[in-house]
Amino acid sequence: MKTILVIGIGAGHPDHLTLQAVKALNRADVFFLFDKGPAKQGLGDVRRELCARLATERPWRFVEASNPERGPDGNSYTGAVRQLNADKQQVFEDMIAQHMADGECAGVLVWGDPALYDSTLRILQAILADGRQVFDYEVIPGITSVQALTASHKVPLNEIGGSVQISPGRQLPARIEAGDSQVVMLDAHQAFNRLRGQGLHIWWGAYVGSADELLVAGPLDDVADEIVRVREQARVRHGWIMDSYLLRHPS
Amino acid sequence: MKTILVIGIGAGHPDHLTLQAVKALNRADVFFLFDKGPAKQGLGDVRRELCARLATERPWRFVEASNPERGPDGNSYTGAVRQLNADKQQVFEDMIAQHMADGECAGVLVWGDPALYDSTLRILQAILADGRQVFDYEVIPGITSVQALTASHKVPLNEIGGSVQISPGRQLPARIEAGDSQVVMLDAHQAFNRLRGQGLHIWWGAYVGSADELLVAGPLDDVADEIVRVREQARVRHGWIMDSYLLRHPS
Repeated sequence: MKTILVIGIGAGHPDHLTLQAVKALNRADVFFLFDKGPAKQGLGDVRRELCARLATERPWRFVEASNPERGPDGNSYTGAVRQLNADKQQVFEDMIAQHMADGECAGVLVWGDPALYDSTLRILQAILADGRQVFDYEVIPGITSVQALTASHKVPLNEIGGSVQISPGRQLPARIEAGDSQVVMLDAHQAFNRLRGQGLHIWWGAYVGSADELLVAGPLDDVADEIVRVREQARVRHGWIMDSYLLRHPS
Repeated sequence: MKTILVIGIGAGHPDHLTLQAVKALNRADVFFLFDKGPAKQGLGDVRRELCARLATERPWRFVEASNPERGPDGNSYTGAVRQLNADKQQVFEDMIAQHMADGECAGVLVWGDPALYDSTLRILQAILADGRQVFDYEVIPGITSVQALTASHKVPLNEIGGSVQISPGRQLPARIEAGDSQVVMLDAHQAFNRLRGQGLHIWWGAYVGSADELLVAGPLDDVADEIVRVREQARVRHGWIMDSYLLRHPS
């Protein structure tokens, strides 16, 4: 039997890995890397460095593949993601078939936590459902950018007894109720601008936990312009950006 | 200056601690423990064992205090929590004043992540606002039971492009929209029973990640009775229970 370890590596801080994740790194015979093009080269480098630093107990190898890119959304974001995942599934299935011997263990390093806005679990489950490959898999949780954000801002995620909603930018509601907390991830279009004028407070961060960390917090109406400016400068400088934010009414 | 490290220790698996958390444990001169009575003795023991096993680089001591208990909710859950936090603040402030020398570093070990349904950050901020004690503090994120739950069930937390809401049981909405995912924590009253008959799927877990882990998953209408029974048996056997669950419509 082949075994695939889906390992959450946290949100950017090199010490976000759990002890459980370090043990998983040291079980792998091979690490699968998905190259996302030169702009995101830095993300691949982080993974290479983690393996070199922490997977020290046994020999292992890298297998790299080019990651398919998402096509235009057209009428359906979900449809575009499903097509992308089908393309990724083919790449992943080929790696399992051609680059793992029976009895070997492969590690896949996932940014944040494998359950939150990541496609790896869905892809593995689709490969198993198609039945051409048979393998075991395990999931090792990781620190998400939500937790990195609140830790860096030293702010509770929830109000006492309140709810927390985590949404992609395109699902951001038009209003946020008193007592509720709203986290936004995957927001390429600064959706927070749509919520100006409601008296909300924002805690924003990019590359949180890493040496490049950027943080801005304050009344949304006062700091929204600053966030737009800081975010765009950083995106151009790095070639990519991972940011997230927390919004709620002041208590 | 005194420094307080608020350290997330994860959701029950002894290897949930991050490398960052282990480094923080090794900076502490003193660990503050809050005794929650004999029924929750096991939670204190977990913390003692973590310190003994992982804080090995320098000498340290424990300081223990009895934790105030929450009074009856009366008309206001929030009011009862605020009173409890005021009582806890007094205990915490006394520990800082009497059991830390200037320049020392104290560690507080928080179950899960310090930002999610935990009062430590609010209490520290209230102490600083009152101005009788001056200190620095840092927050080290931890794996939440949400991540432990999804990892054990190997289930994505969100649908593609969908939102995730995290709520205490008392805030559980009467309906869950298609495409949305609902996580429930702090549910002493099995609020999922109120959502029978909607065709929802549930992924439930208790003591997730620990050796005592219990998992049940399936259509809510089929497995709700089993969860109620398993939960009550476990609560009686352990004297306490920490459970959480994910609900959504099958995709």
